[in-house]
Amino acid sequence: MNQQKLSTQSEGLSRRQWLKGAGVLASCATMANLGNVLPHAHAATTGNMEQWPWPYVKLDPTTTAELAYREWYRIYCGGAVISSVFTQLREKVGEPYTSFPIDAFMFLEGGCASWGTLCGSNAGACIVANLILGPRLLDEEAMGHRISTEILEWYCNASMPVFKPKQPRIKGEIPKTIAESPLCHVSVGKWMAISEKPINSPERKDRCARTAASVSYRLVELLNSWKEDEFEFMEEGNFSPLSDHGINAQPNCAECHGGGVPEAPEMRKPKA
Amino acid sequence: MNQQKLSTQSEGLSRRQWLKGAGVLASCATMANLGNVLPHAHAATTGNMEQWPWPYVKLDPTTTAELAYREWYRIYCGGAVISSVFTQLREKVGEPYTSFPIDAFMFLEGGCASWGTLCGSNAGACIVANLILGPRLLDEEAMGHRISTEILEWYCNASMPVFKPKQPRIKGEIPKTIAESPLCHVSVGKWMAISEKPINSPERKDRCARTAASVSYRLVELLNSWKEDEFEFMEEGNFSPLSDHGINAQPNCAECHGGGVPEAPEMRKPKA
Repeated sequence: MNQQKLSTQSEGLSRRQWLKGAGVLASCATMANLGNVLPHAHAATTGNMEQWPWPYVKLDPTTTAELAYREWYRIYCGGAVISSVFTQLREKVGEPYTSFPIDAFMFLEGGCASWGTLCGSNAGACIVANLILGPRLLDEEAMGHRISTEILEWYCNASMPVFKPKQPRIKGEIPKTIAESPLCHVSVGKWMAISEKPINSPERKDRCARTAASVSYRLVELLNSWKEDEFEFMEEGNFSPLSDHGINAQPNCAECHGGGVPEAPEMRKPKA
Repeated sequence: MNQQKLSTQSEGLSRRQWLKGAGVLASCATMANLGNVLPHAHAATTGNMEQWPWPYVKLDPTTTAELAYREWYRIYCGGAVISSVFTQLREKVGEPYTSFPIDAFMFLEGGCASWGTLCGSNAGACIVANLILGPRLLDEEAMGHRISTEILEWYCNASMPVFKPKQPRIKGEIPKTIAESPLCHVSVGKWMAISEKPINSPERKDRCARTAASVSYRLVELLNSWKEDEFEFMEEGNFSPLSDHGINAQPNCAECHGGGVPEAPEMRKPKA
């Protein structure tokens, strides 16, 4: 697997522990920068699955990836990633995983009901991370948010599919491509261009099943490193594309804006 | 609101009732066309929220939109759309809405953690539709899937924001733009280009809060029409972009592929 270096901070405060103290300030600063205000209390009774983090035990990445590969052939990419993690946690932990409606997320297939937007594997991974770790509203470390961005960035740069199952339906090697995008259309399109296989070919399907497996593997690596207090943060304050582009964006502007990237209106400075 | 014409089929079999019979065949045909196979049973205990459809009572679109507008300022677009529907259903129905972890979906903001992919309002609407109606795996009408596509298509063509709240934070009119895309980056980018307002301006935020409200309004219209057995289907078999493009895609190819749209490898014909 394309391993990210994980540092073990055994002496002194870990970055995560440090952030437990500094996080409130950091969050306030971020929120102030974006000018966000949170004046409204929750409109109704808080759901009983809205206690975070959800209990998590470390999972085996290979086992998880094999499950995702298998589940792809039942409920496709997004559902497969969610199922690969949650079916294990249903057995090892129980609630709230037992109740969570995994199969409803089948629609993530094909970048949301075949619209080619966010790759369902990425969407599924973000859902898992945020369900387990909770929203950044309540988690001053914004860990679910950060793991989401980590997954998307890793996906953009990975030679995909990274993971090869023990008993693949398509024997032997299949082409690998680097999407440079978290989008289904771009990721699958680049692979189809290299492989010259159509969308409904067994090879394309197996490529996407292996991609879901690859994302599940990486997701569990990140969740395990969070559980072990070994998560290596990206640069503080650099976990949102907003600061680089002045607009919600993915990194490869030129891919779509071939004829020149429009300049975003200048962001307003936060009040002193 | 940009109303879609909804036909009332009071005589004979409604299209929905008809599909209840024909749907199994139709689903099989679709699955065969795409060459999908479903060999694996669910790997673990079925979650107790995995009974579909979830109980639904008709909601008032305007009330829902006002809730979404307010909730945007707490958990942004995707969370706001989910909250606007589910907090009402928590009161009117109870479970499984009471338990569902709405706030975890805050990460949908900015097209998934600010990556500018699928607009969070669209993602939130698809999640609501598929949670209530279930996956197409189990629902031969694939209603959650179809409502998702309906929402995305409507969003692409809407002069957004459609909905104006009773007491908007930004007084008066704000510019409206047509995204021709379900993506956050394209939708927000076109609006920023016309309005010349930066991403962190109060005007842009209110535009996105109103957009979430607009999507919630449309979503509840569609859910209500499903509940009343008045849902007007798009052409049978035409609810997936796959058939038009040979790849998971959104409709406006030329927007990104300015220099020429690549041809997808020809799809394999289903076996006779």
